[in-house]
Parts: sequence; structure tokens; C-alpha cells
Amino acid sequence: MPTNRQILLKSRPTGAPSAANFELVSTPAPEPKDGEVLLKTLFLSLDPYMRGRMNDGPSYAAPAVVGQPMVGGTVSQVAASKNKDFKEGDVVGSYVGWQDYAVSNGAGLTRLDPKIVKPYSLALGLLGMPGMTAYAGLMDIGQPKPGETVVVSAASGAVGSVVGQLAKLKGCRAVGVAGGPEKCKYVVETLGFDACIDHRSDKLRDQIAAACPKGIDFYFENVGGATQRAVWPLLNNFSRVAVCGMISSYNDPNPQTGPDLRSVLVKRMTVRGFIVTELAPKFPNAIAELAQAYHQGKIKYREDVVEGLEKAPEAFFGLLQGKNFGKLVVKVA
Amino acid sequence: MPTNRQILLKSRPTGAPSAANFELVSTPAPEPKDGEVLLKTLFLSLDPYMRGRMNDGPSYAAPAVVGQPMVGGTVSQVAASKNKDFKEGDVVGSYVGWQDYAVSNGAGLTRLDPKIVKPYSLALGLLGMPGMTAYAGLMDIGQPKPGETVVVSAASGAVGSVVGQLAKLKGCRAVGVAGGPEKCKYVVETLGFDACIDHRSDKLRDQIAAACPKGIDFYFENVGGATQRAVWPLLNNFSRVAVCGMISSYNDPNPQTGPDLRSVLVKRMTVRGFIVTELAPKFPNAIAELAQAYHQGKIKYREDVVEGLEKAPEAFFGLLQGKNFGKLVVKVA
Repeated sequence: MPTNRQILLKSRPTGAPSAANFELVSTPAPEPKDGEVLLKTLFLSLDPYMRGRMNDGPSYAAPAVVGQPMVGGTVSQVAASKNKDFKEGDVVGSYVGWQDYAVSNGAGLTRLDPKIVKPYSLALGLLGMPGMTAYAGLMDIGQPKPGETVVVSAASGAVGSVVGQLAKLKGCRAVGVAGGPEKCKYVVETLGFDACIDHRSDKLRDQIAAACPKGIDFYFENVGGATQRAVWPLLNNFSRVAVCGMISSYNDPNPQTGPDLRSVLVKRMTVRGFIVTELAPKFPNAIAELAQAYHQGKIKYREDVVEGLEKAPEAFFGLLQGKNFGKLVVKVA
Repeated sequence: MPTNRQILLKSRPTGAPSAANFELVSTPAPEPKDGEVLLKTLFLSLDPYMRGRMNDGPSYAAPAVVGQPMVGGTVSQVAASKNKDFKEGDVVGSYVGWQDYAVSNGAGLTRLDPKIVKPYSLALGLLGMPGMTAYAGLMDIGQPKPGETVVVSAASGAVGSVVGQLAKLKGCRAVGVAGGPEKCKYVVETLGFDACIDHRSDKLRDQIAAACPKGIDFYFENVGGATQRAVWPLLNNFSRVAVCGMISSYNDPNPQTGPDLRSVLVKRMTVRGFIVTELAPKFPNAIAELAQAYHQGKIKYREDVVEGLEKAPEAFFGLLQGKNFGKLVVKVA
């Protein structure tokens, strides 16, 4: 059997994670039994939610297990099959985590159509969890109407870039917030947002206000912190906030304070937290719509590809600091 | 013409309002012109929202005007009519504010059916704005399911008492939070809540937790402050929060901090602020359901009646401190 490199969760971090929280081990790849397939990882997705999985507290999903491979979405190729539903060479969406090989009984595997999911790594981004998150959060919670103003934080990222471009396609004004002039330039010039504000600006609120002359009708929250505080007073009556992520505080073990709920009352706002899996019934339509828009060039999508499984921890630390530029993916094989 | 006593808003308060913010004046009652009626105030409603109307900042309704009668919902009798739709003696729901008499062209007046709105003061409470607020907030935002746990603050008040009793009728566990042992006893023994916690307790969170062994599925927020902070960590996944009022901070000119929105994300909560008027299409059904339940004895409703228009300011100051016990109404005539 080939060698299976695995990156195990070795310990749980307090504050920012470090290399000491992971361990790279090599063992022989497992052998598939009857009804199983051997999966070879092609791409591993790195996403902000993984920071939460490293903790042991209550959350919407069970924590990653210390001593086991770190969890994560993957694109895998069937390397050997003893399952009649899959044949060698099939490429599937999977969730086998930070390792080269894994066996599966087929449950939860999604065969990827190379005519639609092209390149395959899109299954981890635009046509996968991040794209579905963007679609569901914008359409279900945002319910955008033409002429409304949509603001999205982490606007150059896997989710935010799709939120803003979809908002434009729905006839809205789209304003992004991103980290640094290079990302902001990309968000406006390549993605076609109406404006993008650098969250490192010391005039963040004034600049967002200037970019949103009619206030904000929908805020897609990916970061929290200073951006949230700057956006909040600009929200309009009957505005909606989709709370998708708060990456600025993921390394902070203590709860922070949030906005005064008097604002939610006076403006009759709706603030809703969501996880993409709850909106799964909408995925087929969302994939079809996003794939068509992408292949027609109406939605741009950028990947930040890191080569080599062993680079995953370092790339993940960078993700939590906003160092990636586009959807972060590890090319494993 | 009879004498018309009016309580004018004399100045806007900073912090808690005082007698200096109001002025009692007496003038001749106005004379109705063709198409108008002269209204004589029978009952004046005193409600927490009025504190917001005394301010000049942006809100969901225009501020009360300095030098004009303070605003407020009323039950009035037609004392003279030059309008073919109303005859002398009719009793109507109106919004003429803190005064004995007013003229109206009939717009916004609702004729009260003495067989349903019995006594008439119910039009300012159970069968008026507070009851509609309770009904809409519970049913539209709470969407309570049998077996769920509903917590409501200001539980002995005009809104909270209806929220909890309706929740019981819908098969929920109802837990109230109220100020002092007398109110808590009433909430459990008379209104039939499963439990009621005194918000003055120094073990508020522990006591609410003990009363909610399966956590909280819906929180109807009337007060904010310490009660909000105690309730928040007990909210379940997919819980809902209806933000109806935050009376504990109405006298505070500075924004407060609120809950960390990471909790909204992780628990996939929905937090919605609302004002009853937006849900007006549901009112006829709500009035019918609440009136029937009341006359069948399934919903109890308590009024705190103050006699005399001149007592309105002092009673209103007490309302903001939780001194009233039941729906506060001024009997004007």
C-alpha cells in the first residue's frame, strides 16, 4: 500500500493555533473492504470554520478529535473500489480531512461532473460549501431587492466575493470590505463591486458611509470586530444581517461584546446566524446558477493554491490572519 | 365650551424624565368644524415607548413636539359630532394624547364594540397595542412549537403577561422574569406561568437556568440589561429573540454593548426587532382570539388604573422604574 501522510490534531490551541497543535505522521494507506473505496486526496479545502473545530466547547458541530486527522472538505479520486457505485478514477467531493488517503463506504460522497465542476477544485469553493454559503446567506437571509445596498466583509474571499457579485447580478449596489489595497483593487476592478474599503483604514466608518450614500440594507458578516462596529450604525430600517463568520475573534477565547440591541429594535432589524448545511435543499439550484454564471464569465472566482499537504498548517495560520488572496486550497496530489 | 386640560411636553429629558419636562395648561376645548367630532378622553394609555418619543433622535416614529400635548393612545367618547360616521356617545379608540378633549376628522378612529371590548380600557391593553404586540411577537417571530420553552421579561406587564399566557395555550413552557416577589407570585399563581424569576436576584442566571432545564427556545425581550445578559447564554440552537423593548436602558443616553454575535452564529439564532404596527394585517384575528380567551377566563389581564389626568407624569415616571403592577392606564373622565 502507498504511504498515507496525515496531519493530526495534536492539541487544542488557546488563542492563535501554532505548529505545535499539529503533527505530521506517515502510515500505510488503509485497505478498502467490501463495499468501500480507497480515496486519494487531490485537493484539501482550508476554511475559517476549522478554527472552531479545534476547540472543545459546544458548537454547531462536534470538535475535531485530538490524535485524529484534522477535519476538512476534500476533492478525492477513487484509487481502488470495492463499491459498485464508484469506479476507479471517479472524482468525488468528500470530507476526509488533512490526509493523503482514506477509505469510505460511499456515504456522503458526491460524484463531480467534469463538465460542470471545472476545475475540480471549484467543488471546494464556488460550487461547494463557500459558494453555497454565499448564495444561501444572500438569497435567504438578505432577500436583496434591486437598488438596495449590500455590504460584505472579507470581500475578496471565497464567500464574500460571491456574495458581492451575486448582489450585483440581482441589481444591488455592492460594497466590499477587505484587507489592503491589492485586495480592494481586485474587488472593484475584477469582481465589479461598486466600492471596496480597506478595513485597516483609520477612517473605516467614514469611508464605508461615503460608499453607501443610501445606508446599508443588508450586511453579510464574515469578520466581526472593527468592521462590524463601523457597519452597524449605517444599517437602515428593516435591514438584515447574515452572521456567517467572525474571523477576527476566532482566536480570542473570551466572548466579546456586540452591538446594543436597541439598534435592532429601533431599526426593526433581523440578525440571523446560519450554517450552510441547514439550507441544503437549495443547493442544486444554487450550483446550477453559479456554474452557469461562472462559465459565462459573469462571476469571477480566484483561488489561492498551496502545493503540498505538509504546507496546510502554515497556510491555515495565514488564513486566520487574512494572508490568503482568494479561496485557499491545498493541492495534495 | 368645557375646559381642556392638556399636559404639554415642555422640554426633552436627558436621562430620567422629571416633572420639569411637562406642563399642565388649561384652555377652552376646541370646537368641531363640519366633518369633525369632539372627543372627550375616557382613558389614556401610558407605555414605555413614550420615553423614546420624548427624545429628538432618529427612531421609528417622529418625536413628540415640544409645546404640544404629549402623545399617547386613548379611549374617547364622542362629545359632539359634525361627522356622519360618528354620533354623540360613540366610544372610539383614538390617539389624541395627554388631554381632556380633542377634535378629529374621523381618520384613525376605531369604534369599540362594547360586547367585545369590555371594559373599554381593554382597547389600550389586551385588545390594543400591547396585546397585538404580544401576539405578533410571539406568533410571527417566536413561532412557538409545543414543548418549547418561552422566556419573557416584564412578565407581569401589559405585553409580557399576554406573551406567557398565549405561550401556555400553545403548549409551551412559559417562564417569566419580573420585579419583586409580589409580581412573581402573580405571574405563576394567577397567570399560570410555569415559573417566574425576580430580576433583582443576585443569582438571576442560575435561577433562570434552573427554571429552563431544556434551555430557552424563544426569548421575548422587553427589558435588556441584566436580564438579557442572564438569558443569552441559555438560548438554544435555532432559538429566536423578539426585541420588543429594552426599558432598562431607555433613560440611558449612551448606547450600551450587547451580546457577542458569535453566539448568534454558533447557535444559528434569529434576533429580530419589531414594532407592532408592521403586523397590522394580523390584528383582526388576534383581537378575536384574545377577546375570546379573555372572556372564557383562559387569559387573565390586570390593569393598574390611576385616576386623573394630572397624575399621568408621576405614573409614567413610575412605569419606567417598574412601579406599576399590570397595564398602566389613566382614567381621565
